Amino acid sequence: MKMFAPMLAALLAASPVLALDGKWTPGQVREIDPAWLKDQGLELRPGQLWDAQRGTGLLAGTVNIAGCSGAFVSKRGLVLTNHHCLFPMLQEHSRPGRDLIRDGFLARKPEEELASASVRVEVPRRFRDVSAEILAAVPEGADAAARYTAIEARSRALVDACQQRPGSKCRVAVHDEGVQYVLIESFELRDVRLVYAPPRAVGEYGGEVDNWMWPRHTGDFAIARAWAGSDNAPADHATGNRPYQPEFHFPISTRGLAAGDFLMLLGYPGITWRALLAEEMRERRERFFPRRVDVFGEWIGILEQASAGDAAGTIAVAANLKGIANRHKNAQGQIAGLDRMGTLARQQAADDAVAAWAREQAQHQGALAAREALRALLAEREAGFERDFLLNLIPLGTEAPAGGVPPLPKALYFAATLAQNAREQAKADAVRAAGYTAADADKLRARLQREQANYFAPADQRIFAALVRRALALPEGLRIASLDARFAGKDAQAIAGEIAALYAGSRLLDASAREAMLGESVEALQAREDPLLALGFAWADDIAALRARERAWLARSAIHRPLWRRAVAAHAGQPVAPDANGTLRVGFAHVQGYSPRDGVVYTPFTRLSGVLEKHTGVEPFALPPALLAAMRDPGERWRDRALADVPVNFLADGDSSGGNSGSPMVNGRGELVGINFDRVWENVAGDFGFNPAYSRNISVDVRYLLWQLDRVEDAQTLLKELRVR
Amino acid sequence: MKMFAPMLAALLAASPVLALDGKWTPGQVREIDPAWLKDQGLELRPGQLWDAQRGTGLLAGTVNIAGCSGAFVSKRGLVLTNHHCLFPMLQEHSRPGRDLIRDGFLARKPEEELASASVRVEVPRRFRDVSAEILAAVPEGADAAARYTAIEARSRALVDACQQRPGSKCRVAVHDEGVQYVLIESFELRDVRLVYAPPRAVGEYGGEVDNWMWPRHTGDFAIARAWAGSDNAPADHATGNRPYQPEFHFPISTRGLAAGDFLMLLGYPGITWRALLAEEMRERRERFFPRRVDVFGEWIGILEQASAGDAAGTIAVAANLKGIANRHKNAQGQIAGLDRMGTLARQQAADDAVAAWAREQAQHQGALAAREALRALLAEREAGFERDFLLNLIPLGTEAPAGGVPPLPKALYFAATLAQNAREQAKADAVRAAGYTAADADKLRARLQREQANYFAPADQRIFAALVRRALALPEGLRIASLDARFAGKDAQAIAGEIAALYAGSRLLDASAREAMLGESVEALQAREDPLLALGFAWADDIAALRARERAWLARSAIHRPLWRRAVAAHAGQPVAPDANGTLRVGFAHVQGYSPRDGVVYTPFTRLSGVLEKHTGVEPFALPPALLAAMRDPGERWRDRALADVPVNFLADGDSSGGNSGSPMVNGRGELVGINFDRVWENVAGDFGFNPAYSRNISVDVRYLLWQLDRVEDAQTLLKELRVR
Repeated sequence: MKMFAPMLAALLAASPVLALDGKWTPGQVREIDPAWLKDQGLELRPGQLWDAQRGTGLLAGTVNIAGCSGAFVSKRGLVLTNHHCLFPMLQEHSRPGRDLIRDGFLARKPEEELASASVRVEVPRRFRDVSAEILAAVPEGADAAARYTAIEARSRALVDACQQRPGSKCRVAVHDEGVQYVLIESFELRDVRLVYAPPRAVGEYGGEVDNWMWPRHTGDFAIARAWAGSDNAPADHATGNRPYQPEFHFPISTRGLAAGDFLMLLGYPGITWRALLAEEMRERRERFFPRRVDVFGEWIGILEQASAGDAAGTIAVAANLKGIANRHKNAQGQIAGLDRMGTLARQQAADDAVAAWAREQAQHQGALAAREALRALLAEREAGFERDFLLNLIPLGTEAPAGGVPPLPKALYFAATLAQNAREQAKADAVRAAGYTAADADKLRARLQREQANYFAPADQRIFAALVRRALALPEGLRIASLDARFAGKDAQAIAGEIAALYAGSRLLDASAREAMLGESVEALQAREDPLLALGFAWADDIAALRARERAWLARSAIHRPLWRRAVAAHAGQPVAPDANGTLRVGFAHVQGYSPRDGVVYTPFTRLSGVLEKHTGVEPFALPPALLAAMRDPGERWRDRALADVPVNFLADGDSSGGNSGSPMVNGRGELVGINFDRVWENVAGDFGFNPAYSRNISVDVRYLLWQLDRVEDAQTLLKELRVR
Repeated sequence: MKMFAPMLAALLAASPVLALDGKWTPGQVREIDPAWLKDQGLELRPGQLWDAQRGTGLLAGTVNIAGCSGAFVSKRGLVLTNHHCLFPMLQEHSRPGRDLIRDGFLARKPEEELASASVRVEVPRRFRDVSAEILAAVPEGADAAARYTAIEARSRALVDACQQRPGSKCRVAVHDEGVQYVLIESFELRDVRLVYAPPRAVGEYGGEVDNWMWPRHTGDFAIARAWAGSDNAPADHATGNRPYQPEFHFPISTRGLAAGDFLMLLGYPGITWRALLAEEMRERRERFFPRRVDVFGEWIGILEQASAGDAAGTIAVAANLKGIANRHKNAQGQIAGLDRMGTLARQQAADDAVAAWAREQAQHQGALAAREALRALLAEREAGFERDFLLNLIPLGTEAPAGGVPPLPKALYFAATLAQNAREQAKADAVRAAGYTAADADKLRARLQREQANYFAPADQRIFAALVRRALALPEGLRIASLDARFAGKDAQAIAGEIAALYAGSRLLDASAREAMLGESVEALQAREDPLLALGFAWADDIAALRARERAWLARSAIHRPLWRRAVAAHAGQPVAPDANGTLRVGFAHVQGYSPRDGVVYTPFTRLSGVLEKHTGVEPFALPPALLAAMRDPGERWRDRALADVPVNFLADGDSSGGNSGSPMVNGRGELVGINFDRVWENVAGDFGFNPAYSRNISVDVRYLLWQLDRVEDAQTLLKELRVR
């Protein structure tokens, strides 16, 4: 099959860099022209990436660990991933007098490794296209809702059947809302132990200051080991377990890498939105992100002002303030990034080209109608945007919306969560919504307690008032009933008074009183005649209506999107990677820097001397004395001749997204040369589109890890297991 | 004479860039090996730079304008300099409804040019080494003070004699405290008129945000014209005047320039401190700049807190706050820069090498003793550093210490200035200190009024208290008598009360009452029994004692420094440029970028597309619509092929300092290719030493000026006079 060459030529024409966007599924790997891959720099046969028959290859060594990506790197189950991915394990084992977060950790013998109560390693076993089976379940003449329900039911049945196989964990991955349905079978290793983590001064060097930024000097790496039963099968943690022997593990390259080198990025990228129409991206650019900047900016001001001069208040709001500031910066970055990359104009041109082509294709006439239907759906959603945006501001229960916006105002969060929980508890456990089952109870209780620690009444009341003010400004027909009922027609002063009364008249804001209510029925809660709780029930009704709207939209989108995307792929005449959805993918890349703006060039490597250059002694640039001494005398072994120094981080045009944290960066020989851990600020909007000029991922050069193990930790046993020297 | 080649080789070995530090005097130009200059890229004979016999050459076209540097660029007296240098002319002619600062200005005919009441153009005429004459004036056996006084008297006599020549303005430049004394004769053109200035959105694009920064996109250029009498001699402004015809003017290059091109930087660099011993630089690094960071940081906090929530207070302190924040940032930058450049270690090594060499040289034994004497002098100064630093914090009268730290607390400034002025008025006008003569009276009155506008009592009293607190913490033997007498032994609360009483009990803080006192004698002022005024007299006594100490140090330094510096030059075996002192100098450079830190490279040119990239619509990045439109359609004429765009600013390793603002950047053919206007942040500490890796000056590419004149202003007449197209 001949492909890609025209695309590559076009990209090269647009930019002097090599750019190979797309997060390819294991199934797509075999569709890619081997000659083209060889040209790029792949020295392996494509079958060595993923052998679907035997369920082996490089991808079999690419695991999902703690929601991140990771790689087997020894025949005895060592898994290499990011420091920030294993951070919970460090927390789990830290206590007064033993601060693993600050000091790092190294197990010098297997017996010293630290087991985790929650971290699992998920290893891929099989990928099966089940599109035909699933679509066969849709009854003839079914409307969108019935169709969607049928697809869900059949998917559940396939998963249940798959999970009959011992140790298997299955899911149906939906690519581009239904272009393809893939049944993914994995197995989960449940005994995972911490082997090595550097001190925070290395693993988080630069902290929030350097987050998303280049130049970067972070040693964001850590090593765990998967253990199994004596039969090498998944097993619970036990003393008699032995190191798991993986089907495949990555050799570690000590040969280094250089600008222009071919690389593969393997892992589990999170959600991206590249299959959106240009109009849908415009909605993000013009409505969603600006409204986030607006609301979060207001909240930041309120949190800062309300807590100024109040020590306890300042502490209480600190975590939420940081989270919101992070989202505020991100939304600004998305807007700037979409503009900088010219994403909307590019997408519009691409959409129009597909439409013009489809108009001439008898078999793709449906695509044109599908595009129109998606536009109509968008228009419907946009008509209610301002209302739905406000409703979606407050995650309920244990919901953690993308990006972790904390629930504010907490009073409304507490009230609606209790109401929602009571309603779900009235159902049989099997049919309860996610987050409210018996198995979720502890998580919910813990979350409510955690939010209490971040509750500060003066700030909360002002954010509540800001929400009400926005709700009352909504046009007729787009009102939020729960808030209308309580606040309509009142002026700012009256609203503030009403809110103060709500807070004063409720026992919900007392943590123990609230915890006691968590087990109460709907009737018992309503009998309390707590005004805030009453508002919570009403808000939960509004949310239920929102979720129903959203489900109906999804059901319709699931009809139209695949039609349109099939035309996009047919027009391309080559594989088109589906949007990322947390499933295993491969990306092809090259080591390269970029120009973030006029007059500035970012070079592709940073060096140990750059770590020292940033050291100020003040967090997040504070190296402990032993590290400082080691860095000032780095030795010759890990020095790169071209850089005249030990490499630390590098840039490539790897097409990554959130879940790629910990992804192995692999050279053309299949050897691990780095660990992906971030992308650059200019690529914050990369989830909407790839731009060869700005799309860069940031990886740790594995030589920096090896340098740490060798020169700082003197971890020769571990290096030997990694087959280094 | 063979020289420079070894130095250059050493520099090239240390860094791959070409680096040619030194601000060379006109007299030194003829000492430089012509073959070496040719190698560098000079296509002219060195004599074309400065012909001492005829007083002509490139340097004759390099003028001093409004405290800046500038260049004659037409045979009819056009002077090209920086926008920020001619800013006072724009202020002078702006009024409600005619905002030249915002809109810029272009005279389409000579009659439209705008005369200035104060701006002068000073043109060099002659440089004469008068070292022998001056030193001959020192009586045999004179001590340091007598020697210094004799040198001053002889210098004054030489200047007086020189100024007998009609139109001449003379000064004796002292190089490196006495290595050489040069009598400089210039003449001053007094009728200077504004011809062109771009709008502020171009001339100050980037404002404070981009100040000291790269990448830069500022059109910091403006054009004036010098006019003369009908005999081409300096004349006061008059209708009958005609454009001045300079001895030399720079042709403007339209051929452009590229990375690596040879350049000369001509102009009047301000004070530098490279002749200091390593120990003296250490005093700046360890005492002076950190204490500035400390005190200014405290003041910033006080000004912000004391004025928060007070609209009038916020306005009153705004200008001082900006000035202090600028100095605060600068002091931090000096510390970071000295460390980054490794200046102290380099200087120590250089000093030690000279000392080791001098030890073997019979005729330089005195240098070793001189070094010891300078060190002893430093030790004396350091012993009193904390006291003298505090005394030097408050400039009196019209003093504007380097960097323009505003006088604070103003109450003490007002009181001590009035006291000082009354004492000076008691003397004959001819012997009054600078700033207090009859000719200075208006300036002093205006300054006092201006400071009143920035006076805000609550902030002023708190800064006063902070000063007192610091003074009372001084050790025994280093006390400030004036403050001790009033505040010794009091606690913070008592001090605050005392200060409040001082302010309440004084009429000095009333602007009109104070202005009335300006003419009063010492006796009349003392009879007022104003407690603040009494403190002012006591503070003025402390200052007088400080100035006496400083003069004694200078007198001793003037004996030892030249001995040491002569050994430095002899050891170098080649010319050594003296520290800059506001006199005409030449620097040699090449167009080149640099790496400010690991992972980042700054390219040497910025482009018009980069101006657009920075445009946000918000000051200081707000382009008016007409400019935006012009930039989006820049045309082909001024486009650089390699950059694929119109060049805007460029970097070179020109060895500049403050007074180089407006300096012509000239290519090897003697053509003007740019206008220097700033240096980069990494070079803030460049006044202490040159580092080929970081020492970069920032210039406007003259093609950006020509593009503005052509495409934005359509100033074809002006372009024709500049002999462009």
